[in-house]
Amino acid sequence: MKLAFTPASPFARKVRIAAIELGLIDKIEFVPTKVVPAEANDEYMKITPLKKLPVLITDDGSVILDSYVIVEYLDELAGGGKLIPASGPDRWKVKSDHSLLQGMLDSMLLCRYENMVRPKELKWQAWADDHWNRAWKGMARFNDKPEVLSRPLDIVQIALAVVLGYADFRYADCGWRKAYPNLDAFHERMLERPSVKISLPPKT
Amino acid sequence: MKLAFTPASPFARKVRIAAIELGLIDKIEFVPTKVVPAEANDEYMKITPLKKLPVLITDDGSVILDSYVIVEYLDELAGGGKLIPASGPDRWKVKSDHSLLQGMLDSMLLCRYENMVRPKELKWQAWADDHWNRAWKGMARFNDKPEVLSRPLDIVQIALAVVLGYADFRYADCGWRKAYPNLDAFHERMLERPSVKISLPPKT
Repeated sequence: MKLAFTPASPFARKVRIAAIELGLIDKIEFVPTKVVPAEANDEYMKITPLKKLPVLITDDGSVILDSYVIVEYLDELAGGGKLIPASGPDRWKVKSDHSLLQGMLDSMLLCRYENMVRPKELKWQAWADDHWNRAWKGMARFNDKPEVLSRPLDIVQIALAVVLGYADFRYADCGWRKAYPNLDAFHERMLERPSVKISLPPKT
Repeated sequence: MKLAFTPASPFARKVRIAAIELGLIDKIEFVPTKVVPAEANDEYMKITPLKKLPVLITDDGSVILDSYVIVEYLDELAGGGKLIPASGPDRWKVKSDHSLLQGMLDSMLLCRYENMVRPKELKWQAWADDHWNRAWKGMARFNDKPEVLSRPLDIVQIALAVVLGYADFRYADCGWRKAYPNLDAFHERMLERPSVKISLPPKT
């Protein structure tokens, strides 16, 4: 299998951590791929018109997206029910919490594009504030869920570690550790995992 | 169950069509909810910090998001495997095609925010063009998949009908029918379903 990725992509990082934790990392070839908002990448758009990372290309040439579906696919390859509960009420809690984290990441990326990619004179502060607020309030939600932070590893914890790593990467001064001490302790515990440590975004 | 929704939300429309087709519509109370980019909605953000529609609130008070997870949940309530294959290679094709359509809708909404919600003087044309291009090339992808357009109803067809309905709603002059005749014929067939017809976005 091949994974189109870049080390700076939090969505690709999520898949990478999952693949390591599921014991599948050696079956995946990582293909560095560059996508930039408001710039074309015609070659990659033949694979996915969305021009988003990551996608997984299976050995028979099927293209799997998005990052969550890729994790579901890898989870099934690994036997099923490893990072996402296979059934029961927990399944919907985990899926919903993951959707929340996915949306938080989307908002953090929109916020970054607004602040750091879009031409400065075209910045709309209210839009950036709105999206940052979604991510920030989402962090508060998880800070207040000690049961989520301490249970055995699952996709919610992986996605949450990725959100916090992305906050460090792109918003180093946002102060999440001070505001959310439970998340700080959780993140420290997650960093003890080689999968989480090795996949940290590059230094800026 | 309660669904936070607005008739203008394509994501909420997808859930509504699925609920009708699964025979679950009478179990859902629709709660009109207003969310606007760059404007606060503190009450709704207590339910979901993402401030996005729709969310489903189950009878025990659980909050399920996003629209795809809600459809999965309803599909399971209806017995499973109705709109999303329960297993096999088709499962990943359907999930990936749905993710593509979800991303196309995200891009169409970003494009609308750029063109019609953001203050005019802050518009970044290259960003709007990039996102429109993703949706447009995505449509081409489905126009060239006759097998997807003609098989029994599933979540991909529902999401595709929603994408095309949203194109009519917000980009009435984009010319998708002329550019993509297979999608035009598909959309006409889909409109024969009461679920698709009754859920059309309001006239603008």
